[in-house]
Amino acid sequence: MVADSPFVSDVPADQALDAWRDACATAGCPPRVDAVRVPVGEAVGRVTAEPVWARRSSPAFDAAGMDGIAVRAADTVGAAETTPVLLTDFAVVDTGDPLPDGYDGVVMREHVHRVGDAAEVRAAVPPYQHVRSIGEDVSASELLLPAGHRLRPVDVAAAAAAGVVELAVRRSPSVVIVPTGDEIRPIGTEPAPGEIVDTNSLMLAAQARELGCTARVTPIVPDDPALITEAMRKAAADADLVVLVAGSSAGRDDYTARVVAGAGTLAVHGVAVRPGHPVVLGTVDATPVLGAPGYPVSAALTFDIFAAPLLAALEGAAPRERPVATARLARKLASNIGMDDWVRVRLGRVGGEIVATPLPRGAGVLTSLVRADGLLVVPAGLEGHHAGERVRVELLRGLGEIGRTIVAIGSHDLVLDVAASALRADDPLVTLAGANVGSLGGLVALRDGLCHLAGSHLLDPATGEYTLPYVERVLGDEDVAVVRLVHRDQGLIVAAGNPLGLTGIDGLTRVRYVNRQRGAGTRVLLDHELANRGIDPAAIDGYSREEHTHLAVAAAVAAGRADAGLGILAAARAFGLDFVPVAREPYDLVLRASMVDDPLLAPLWELLARPEFRAEVEALGGYGCTEMGRRIR
Amino acid sequence: MVADSPFVSDVPADQALDAWRDACATAGCPPRVDAVRVPVGEAVGRVTAEPVWARRSSPAFDAAGMDGIAVRAADTVGAAETTPVLLTDFAVVDTGDPLPDGYDGVVMREHVHRVGDAAEVRAAVPPYQHVRSIGEDVSASELLLPAGHRLRPVDVAAAAAAGVVELAVRRSPSVVIVPTGDEIRPIGTEPAPGEIVDTNSLMLAAQARELGCTARVTPIVPDDPALITEAMRKAAADADLVVLVAGSSAGRDDYTARVVAGAGTLAVHGVAVRPGHPVVLGTVDATPVLGAPGYPVSAALTFDIFAAPLLAALEGAAPRERPVATARLARKLASNIGMDDWVRVRLGRVGGEIVATPLPRGAGVLTSLVRADGLLVVPAGLEGHHAGERVRVELLRGLGEIGRTIVAIGSHDLVLDVAASALRADDPLVTLAGANVGSLGGLVALRDGLCHLAGSHLLDPATGEYTLPYVERVLGDEDVAVVRLVHRDQGLIVAAGNPLGLTGIDGLTRVRYVNRQRGAGTRVLLDHELANRGIDPAAIDGYSREEHTHLAVAAAVAAGRADAGLGILAAARAFGLDFVPVAREPYDLVLRASMVDDPLLAPLWELLARPEFRAEVEALGGYGCTEMGRRIR
Repeated sequence: MVADSPFVSDVPADQALDAWRDACATAGCPPRVDAVRVPVGEAVGRVTAEPVWARRSSPAFDAAGMDGIAVRAADTVGAAETTPVLLTDFAVVDTGDPLPDGYDGVVMREHVHRVGDAAEVRAAVPPYQHVRSIGEDVSASELLLPAGHRLRPVDVAAAAAAGVVELAVRRSPSVVIVPTGDEIRPIGTEPAPGEIVDTNSLMLAAQARELGCTARVTPIVPDDPALITEAMRKAAADADLVVLVAGSSAGRDDYTARVVAGAGTLAVHGVAVRPGHPVVLGTVDATPVLGAPGYPVSAALTFDIFAAPLLAALEGAAPRERPVATARLARKLASNIGMDDWVRVRLGRVGGEIVATPLPRGAGVLTSLVRADGLLVVPAGLEGHHAGERVRVELLRGLGEIGRTIVAIGSHDLVLDVAASALRADDPLVTLAGANVGSLGGLVALRDGLCHLAGSHLLDPATGEYTLPYVERVLGDEDVAVVRLVHRDQGLIVAAGNPLGLTGIDGLTRVRYVNRQRGAGTRVLLDHELANRGIDPAAIDGYSREEHTHLAVAAAVAAGRADAGLGILAAARAFGLDFVPVAREPYDLVLRASMVDDPLLAPLWELLARPEFRAEVEALGGYGCTEMGRRIR
Repeated sequence: MVADSPFVSDVPADQALDAWRDACATAGCPPRVDAVRVPVGEAVGRVTAEPVWARRSSPAFDAAGMDGIAVRAADTVGAAETTPVLLTDFAVVDTGDPLPDGYDGVVMREHVHRVGDAAEVRAAVPPYQHVRSIGEDVSASELLLPAGHRLRPVDVAAAAAAGVVELAVRRSPSVVIVPTGDEIRPIGTEPAPGEIVDTNSLMLAAQARELGCTARVTPIVPDDPALITEAMRKAAADADLVVLVAGSSAGRDDYTARVVAGAGTLAVHGVAVRPGHPVVLGTVDATPVLGAPGYPVSAALTFDIFAAPLLAALEGAAPRERPVATARLARKLASNIGMDDWVRVRLGRVGGEIVATPLPRGAGVLTSLVRADGLLVVPAGLEGHHAGERVRVELLRGLGEIGRTIVAIGSHDLVLDVAASALRADDPLVTLAGANVGSLGGLVALRDGLCHLAGSHLLDPATGEYTLPYVERVLGDEDVAVVRLVHRDQGLIVAAGNPLGLTGIDGLTRVRYVNRQRGAGTRVLLDHELANRGIDPAAIDGYSREEHTHLAVAAAVAAGRADAGLGILAAARAFGLDFVPVAREPYDLVLRASMVDDPLLAPLWELLARPEFRAEVEALGGYGCTEMGRRIR
């Protein structure tokens, strides 16, 4: 199969961008979009096409800088607390009034004592005291703004103050998005199996608009080179950039590279960026074309890395920059040599330092970008980073918000989602962010100073006790508090109608099972239940097949890949599956005792005490809230 | 006068905001704007009004994660390089295709060798290799987004992928701006003396729109309490926030506080913030009202400090945050105890550190905000900062751009403005930023590592030589380079038509003079010319009156405050004044020798060598470019 596939190369991102720019220049793509003249009131967000020089001075006259009286400085010579001077020749002025002819200083009203028609001054006035000189803000003919400046509210106000009522700016670049693919369906349709809803076009158009462009999405084009070519050329006719979505790889129905090469110039096919690798950069009919991969994270990042700088250059402006910060990596991060690896991370401030927890890295996991607080680029030359290493992250949220984020690492429970949502609704600045690494992983993260809370439901088979024995094992002498969140039902998630008639753990030897990962409380519970019954794990088909969340277990059952898996009722309900109860267990929050009274967590404790919240949790089914918020250690 | 003025207090900013919020709650102002349901495609930029839960899983089916063939994992057991397995039961799949029934793994096309109709596999396939599981991105019923989340392109795409086609979001808050003042004229009118163009409304409306609000500006209301009250109540009827512009102080025509107190509740009059002090915060008819000062910097900052958090709260979202950085202060900064002092600063990276140079601090100097790269808040409890102290700045430009900024501190010349504009037009990432502290101040700044270039035209009276003797005096043994920028004419700037018939320095004893500050090259030149003629500086009226730029000197002459001042031809032309030549002098750029070949400065050297640029400078008048760019040391 290698022989008949076009070669997808690994061009480093900066070289790819340079090659694209060179191809654009060679193809005669305009280096800048046209300049247009617009009134100052419509110019905010646009980029100046030429320098802006002041047409008049501001202020245009000498003006009083304070409320008070205008005086002749010479009349006040010798005035002091002990030798006040009584003035009869003065004029009352308010801030901004022109300085009346003949006067050359202002005395603040607070320092003037009226004595009949006269004014008593108790300090000599230096000439031009409290006078705003003509041109104090800007002098006629001064350079106000350079070309290539993106206009902000203060800029247009300053221009207007300097007598400039119209500005030459670059028009908005126009981006046309062309979705392709036989399996792609418009948003709003209910996709049949194998069909995919066209969320990429929605996203890419919104990304273009965020950069100040106009954006338009064409109808979906089937996987047919002739039709794609036609749609691309038509789009190029009124676009400054065409984005072809999907088909940029080298599969049987991937026509983008061929189509661009056939109708124009193919500058790059394949970049050393992950996610994003199969990218097409080229031109057609003097218009740049970007072929974006169909995986949504790849599409979003590709636009960011390649389209954004090109569009900024078309406006003659500096590309927008994300702020950066240094963070401590919560866990080891492996990365392939030879590719820039764009890793999405959650961020939180723990113990005075920002901690970065990597999110799932698949190119198809768009929620990883939704949940990301930052982006960490592992450069092509590195094999990754160690846990605890300090890394540079580009911020997607402000540091203030990140500082108000409660970081919960450990076992996942739906109640944490519900709490996250309730906390945010109360105070938009509060975030509860979770990473699911299992109960044991959470305790280790807590020990290593990487989270505020560890969600845990670990059963100690020896004692039948939950959580506490593990806390002592992992955190030793540390001063740790444990707060109960809920009791919840664990059970077997099975197909709707329970077709195999499972009644409990005993039946697992005759079905295909899907397990949780080592260190997960649910895995420990299974092992305990199996041991109680003397069942050898090796007797269970699928015991070694591991998923990382309750929902992933339910998904495996829903897809028919497994007949049963242990998990919570809410996960079964999410997929319309049946549930065979096995045990009711406590789910606890473990934290450092010093954090119990930290203001960061106060909103959470307050929430857990609220009857409405408890009612909401119990309505989910499978939960008991009688001990919610009780400190058990 | 104190007696009859309402009291403008000094409420700390956070207390003022709390008092305003309390007043809003008491007056029955809605805590949030209404929720509306909009299609996902129109929701970007808006804030979620309720949590968003996934309606379906994404992917909705198990799918191939790679281009290749779908296989039964069990069929590949034992396959290895030396023992390939030949499969006849497989299905060719592309990335994203549903995994055909009966298959449970995918082999990448690059690892498959076709042998007729069969496929040769050289490695065993673990079950579910290269399979994207149902729900890998998001599982049905999972929490996708909390309430209070401002939607980005990735968010709406993820929502659409999870089957959510409509979102409940907060509508845009509506801001109505009411400009007041007898002296205020609409933009586009040519203001008569004493009149002011209404640039504040333009700016405030744009600031509101930048925050995602809708904004409307009413006609200008004269200084009449009844008319202002009427306009305010009318605005309040369809606004979520009313901004009254100007009149917020305690002058004779300042009615805002009275009007708000009369028609509603006056919560705060006066805050401990500079610029911004005379701020009015209150409510009318269950709508919040902000009375903004008329000084443009005060108006802009007041909106930022008070309106922005209120509007974010109305949307139920976190207020936007500016990124922050640490910078070294280029010079001493004094500040009044008792007021938060918002200082605008220019930033540049010099010797590996960010250096902050304070800009003019007047509330009327809007260009200080235009030119600012950052804001430095000196808190109420501090008297200021020492030169060289490390301070926290809120960034108004990205650090990447700041790193490409050439910092020129010293004497000002218009040629630097022209160069700044030309450099930016060539490359939007290059900025040439100047601070005018006089020639000597520039050399001191260079010595202290606070700039890249010092613009200097200092005459050594003892030798008649320019610049070099001072370089040795200030920078001693440092390895310093000097590059000639231009020769330029210095002369007396006099009123149009030269009514006093001045012909040179000799006539200065009979006119009102305006001088430059100590350390300015022009001041040194004057002193030299006076000494040559045996004229005592004390004999010159106005010798002690100091301005800091050529343009300010010209402005003083234009305003009739002085009859003459020494300066450059371009400054005289800017104000339509006459010019009596006195001397032609060189203007040089001083820099560390190590910086000559630094890539930062390469675009500048290239520009100085360009004939078109030299022609442009000579066309300004009063300049000679024959030595432009020549290294003279």
